[in-house]
Amino acid sequence: MKLKGQHLLSVKDISLDLIDELFIVAESMRPYAGRQKVTRVLEGAVLGNMFFEPSTRTRVSFGSAFNLLGGEVRETTGLSNSALAKGESLYDTAQVLSGYSDIIAMRHPKAGSVKEFSLGSRVPVINGGDGPNEHPTQALLDLFTIKNELARQNKSIQNLSLTLLGDLKHGRTVHSLCQLLALYRNLKIQLISPAELAMPTKYVDLLVNAGHQVEVGTTLEQGLPQANIIYQTRIQEERFSSQQEANLYRGYFRLNKQIYAQHCQPDAVIMHPLPRDSRNEANELDNDLNAMPGLAIFRQTDNGILVRMALFACILGVEDIIQNYEQTVNWYSGLRK
Amino acid sequence: MKLKGQHLLSVKDISLDLIDELFIVAESMRPYAGRQKVTRVLEGAVLGNMFFEPSTRTRVSFGSAFNLLGGEVRETTGLSNSALAKGESLYDTAQVLSGYSDIIAMRHPKAGSVKEFSLGSRVPVINGGDGPNEHPTQALLDLFTIKNELARQNKSIQNLSLTLLGDLKHGRTVHSLCQLLALYRNLKIQLISPAELAMPTKYVDLLVNAGHQVEVGTTLEQGLPQANIIYQTRIQEERFSSQQEANLYRGYFRLNKQIYAQHCQPDAVIMHPLPRDSRNEANELDNDLNAMPGLAIFRQTDNGILVRMALFACILGVEDIIQNYEQTVNWYSGLRK
Amino acid sequence: MKLKGQHLLSVKDISLDLIDELFIVAESMRPYAGRQKVTRVLEGAVLGNMFFEPSTRTRVSFGSAFNLLGGEVRETTGLSNSALAKGESLYDTAQVLSGYSDIIAMRHPKAGSVKEFSLGSRVPVINGGDGPNEHPTQALLDLFTIKNELARQNKSIQNLSLTLLGDLKHGRTVHSLCQLLALYRNLKIQLISPAELAMPTKYVDLLVNAGHQVEVGTTLEQGLPQANIIYQTRIQEERFSSQQEANLYRGYFRLNKQIYAQHCQPDAVIMHPLPRDSRNEANELDNDLNAMPGLAIFRQTDNGILVRMALFACILGVEDIIQNYEQTVNWYSGLRK
Repeated sequence: MKLKGQHLLSVKDISLDLIDELFIVAESMRPYAGRQKVTRVLEGAVLGNMFFEPSTRTRVSFGSAFNLLGGEVRETTGLSNSALAKGESLYDTAQVLSGYSDIIAMRHPKAGSVKEFSLGSRVPVINGGDGPNEHPTQALLDLFTIKNELARQNKSIQNLSLTLLGDLKHGRTVHSLCQLLALYRNLKIQLISPAELAMPTKYVDLLVNAGHQVEVGTTLEQGLPQANIIYQTRIQEERFSSQQEANLYRGYFRLNKQIYAQHCQPDAVIMHPLPRDSRNEANELDNDLNAMPGLAIFRQTDNGILVRMALFACILGVEDIIQNYEQTVNWYSGLRK
Repeated sequence: MKLKGQHLLSVKDISLDLIDELFIVAESMRPYAGRQKVTRVLEGAVLGNMFFEPSTRTRVSFGSAFNLLGGEVRETTGLSNSALAKGESLYDTAQVLSGYSDIIAMRHPKAGSVKEFSLGSRVPVINGGDGPNEHPTQALLDLFTIKNELARQNKSIQNLSLTLLGDLKHGRTVHSLCQLLALYRNLKIQLISPAELAMPTKYVDLLVNAGHQVEVGTTLEQGLPQANIIYQTRIQEERFSSQQEANLYRGYFRLNKQIYAQHCQPDAVIMHPLPRDSRNEANELDNDLNAMPGLAIFRQTDNGILVRMALFACILGVEDIIQNYEQTVNWYSGLRK
Repeated sequence: MKLKGQHLLSVKDISLDLIDELFIVAESMRPYAGRQKVTRVLEGAVLGNMFFEPSTRTRVSFGSAFNLLGGEVRETTGLSNSALAKGESLYDTAQVLSGYSDIIAMRHPKAGSVKEFSLGSRVPVINGGDGPNEHPTQALLDLFTIKNELARQNKSIQNLSLTLLGDLKHGRTVHSLCQLLALYRNLKIQLISPAELAMPTKYVDLLVNAGHQVEVGTTLEQGLPQANIIYQTRIQEERFSSQQEANLYRGYFRLNKQIYAQHCQPDAVIMHPLPRDSRNEANELDNDLNAMPGLAIFRQTDNGILVRMALFACILGVEDIIQNYEQTVNWYSGLRK
């Protein structure tokens, strides 16, 4: 497969063919992620889970995905006291760490850092987020979720009417998703945000040039009725110049059961890259949505395991032999799902 | 067994029957904890060791216990930068993290947080300490140690004369232990503390109502002579309004070899939840006790491995098949014990 | 073998015989470290990787080495919030943690702390660096690299002409290396540093008394021409009383391709304990050396894996049975080297 031995640094490296192949492998991971079976195909392999910027959920998701294939995980979290602080180049750090592992997942606060690191690495590197720049595995799991949620309704990606909602200016995940969506044609995409937090022009142009029907708006009512997928985002407080300025937008768009009933299609799907801000002043997605079948946010995070397992399997070239290393599940796994 | 698929959130969930069953399983863990044998029964399973409040020893104890059953451990330590800081509810955090693991051990600084978390978790959750509230696995390992130390002297729990000593007001471990002891009848329990750090009335009442003979005192001499188990605690400095206030009580009760010889029964057992404060101004248990056979503090911490292995095994329903996955120990383990 | 069941606390514990035996085992680790084969000899064993002072690379190197032998790793990083801060003695910490693992690798900021810890440990302890004092595994991997680099040129240790370069006053690694070199006779050793950062007299005496030809100098030109191995070090900024004072010496000795061509033997080998300070004001080893075959700095860090695997194997007494637990490598490992 194309990914074998390759880095995954950017959504720009991803083609439609690669997506199709990867998602077939991701689907084949369900029995292992769902603990119907165990596979030990990567027994003896070591993941370097190098999070130079802390992130509990993404770090644990990468680590668990590798464990579920039978491999071991060595990891780090945070920048302080590291060799980088003593003036070491990312090239050197990569040379050193790549001698300790078979593959590296890396997050770093600086845009471009993961690519720079990859130039010194002797093993494949997956970008786990380089500051405001890229987070390709999130984009892949989002697209995988869109396709899956549509499939649950016997629809395909060609039926997609997608509304991106919220802080479209700062949201790294929606930017990356737009780049993947630009691989398709003739989709319906609504971009709904406060005027000041609009999607940057270059991504709007990208979507338009790909032949999509793009609408831009500033009110919920413009975005909800026609959408079969609604992708809500968090106001990225940490990217504003002051908390005061961020507070202008927290709670700007709130979805709850009543609004959903009033404005949305009855089977509309709700996604969110998580964490959702559940504090009163924000409450982006009300907890009264939790019991609704359309709330896909936890299926979405679960899909992160499938997609990351698939990436590890494809990059390490074991996607076709996973079944050869199967074992039974000895333990209780009744609560899952 | 009753624990299969269940959360362990509180000592209140624990019955005498459950204790008896659990402790039989804990005993059966000795060959694996003592490295006479290896078992791989949980090979492929993942523990989410989520310590949102740091604690080296408890975290490592949970992790090692899971490794000793053959499973993998993913973990986090500390609250900063986590999604909780971005306004995520514990329900959401639980939904996300429970998709990454088969069982979760969690510590968190806020009372009630682990229970709240468990409501969103799709896998069993073990409370590893929720602030000042509960620490049920410590209570279980304490009770296991009491029963074991008595058994070493051919005594049973019915012979117990127990002295709890020190900061009985703030000590979470002694509060939890009292709740387990309230499941028994007609024990002798001495509660010895500075008057200002007395055991809260509700726990005294609990013991009295259970039919125990409870004595309350403020001097060592009142607590030592009749006890066959002496449970010393640390002054919980971090719970006082000032270090100055805490210093009033550090060093209030000091046990050493001479006092032991003078006041204690010759085979009296000394326990402590650890860490013991060995600085001069506190010196709760003098190092001259280290060579004495009655000093059970390190058997007590070792018992933590047995009890946590037993909990994992019972909750995941593998306690009867552990022997089926045995391997030999290939390596030197001569120093242990 | 002599190391079985032993602590490794100091280079002073190391004899020539032990070095010879250990390095034979280290060589035998190449197929596993290079991912031509997997071994599971330590399956079920647990390493306590206790880094009470953070160090990403040394910590990950120990952890990966243990994983490559099939074992599991539990670890901690940093001192804050630990039991030590609550007044626990290192003896107690060791008693507790040694109940959780089969072997412990420990780093701690205080000189002598690892030895003190070892007195309470019931399992073997490897010193991973105790403040300014010792870092014996670094010294071993440095010596292993020296012997290997010489062997690549069909030379032996008896041909060694070694130049130690840079901050020889504060560099823990060069101090430890001198102690190992003192086990040999009649080597040529040049000690080149700013006068204020000269090698402490006791180490110079040690080398002289061992019968080595020792030259001391303050300029590059004195150290480069005759050396077949050049060991550059970092100015240990953190050991100076002020950054201002440290800045006097950063960039004092810079090696680059031109200087190498002008002053060094054509096959001179360059080593460095890493991290190298690549910022302009220091630039100890210019990046234009990266493509040169003599630059051994990344072979040196890779050798750390071999030496640490060998130490674990020898201390745990499995060095002769590693092949009995071999498995094939299932995954792509094409980029390595």
